[in-house]
Amino acid sequence: MQRIANLLLIENGKVLLMKKPRRGWYVAPGGKMESGESVYEAAIREFREETDAEPLDVHLKGVYTMMIQEGGETVDEWMLFTFRAKRLHGTPFEETREGVLEWHPVESLHTLPMAEGDRTNLLFAASQEGVQYGTFYYTPEFELLKENIQSSSEEVNRRHG
Amino acid sequence: MQRIANLLLIENGKVLLMKKPRRGWYVAPGGKMESGESVYEAAIREFREETDAEPLDVHLKGVYTMMIQEGGETVDEWMLFTFRAKRLHGTPFEETREGVLEWHPVESLHTLPMAEGDRTNLLFAASQEGVQYGTFYYTPEFELLKENIQSSSEEVNRRHG
Repeated sequence: MQRIANLLLIENGKVLLMKKPRRGWYVAPGGKMESGESVYEAAIREFREETDAEPLDVHLKGVYTMMIQEGGETVDEWMLFTFRAKRLHGTPFEETREGVLEWHPVESLHTLPMAEGDRTNLLFAASQEGVQYGTFYYTPEFELLKENIQSSSEEVNRRHG
Repeated sequence: MQRIANLLLIENGKVLLMKKPRRGWYVAPGGKMESGESVYEAAIREFREETDAEPLDVHLKGVYTMMIQEGGETVDEWMLFTFRAKRLHGTPFEETREGVLEWHPVESLHTLPMAEGDRTNLLFAASQEGVQYGTFYYTPEFELLKENIQSSSEEVNRRHG
């Protein structure tokens, strides 16, 4: 089962996002975990590789089950681990083979083109306390079919979805 | 890839553990995630099934990569998600087909017989703020070969291992 770790960097009210060439959708830098890595190590390594900069104050903000469904059948299932960092060491690339790196105001997460499940999890990572959990159901073309979300923090729990 | 969610209940300075029949080792109630579940849903469902009681104030405390190695080769890799709850609704079973449920003082996590990696993650869940990450390397007989641990909290990060 595929495991993906990504990392949203938020500094001075701005987030560092990668614009992917195919659809022009924005994502947080990230990629596939390697065998034996922890999710934390994977998120930091992938962020470094994609940006050439070092994220600081890295913390887990979301754990998601991703279900890809076609014609009512599940054709793939994978896990997404979303981290947040609050400081950066170094100057990120402006463009890589993976896409273009851009700074945007945090509020633009509401409107930038992206997978709708990513919007849910990046908005949580940027603005909420605690950890979010959930399942996203997508078509193979990443049209969101359904999301089922929970969250908790050290002291308080919330459920909705 | 197997995904296991477990849950440590801590109430009035005591933890609810299950003593497994085979080795007499203690574990936190838990089990395998089902397809499409979130890690949070899986931890709560498994705890309910194994104890007949409802955990409250459930929060994620650890995400671990488990590597089973034999003769220098990795023979299995799976993920463990450890949650903590601070309150319980209902009265837990005393004994089930899975094992015997027992209350123990939190400090007994230092000394009760258990897999050494479980000791690391249950002690963290019981007494530390934030989330712990890491990789545990075990033999097929669950002798701990190596652990590599990180942790973070909303504001502060620590690394060691």
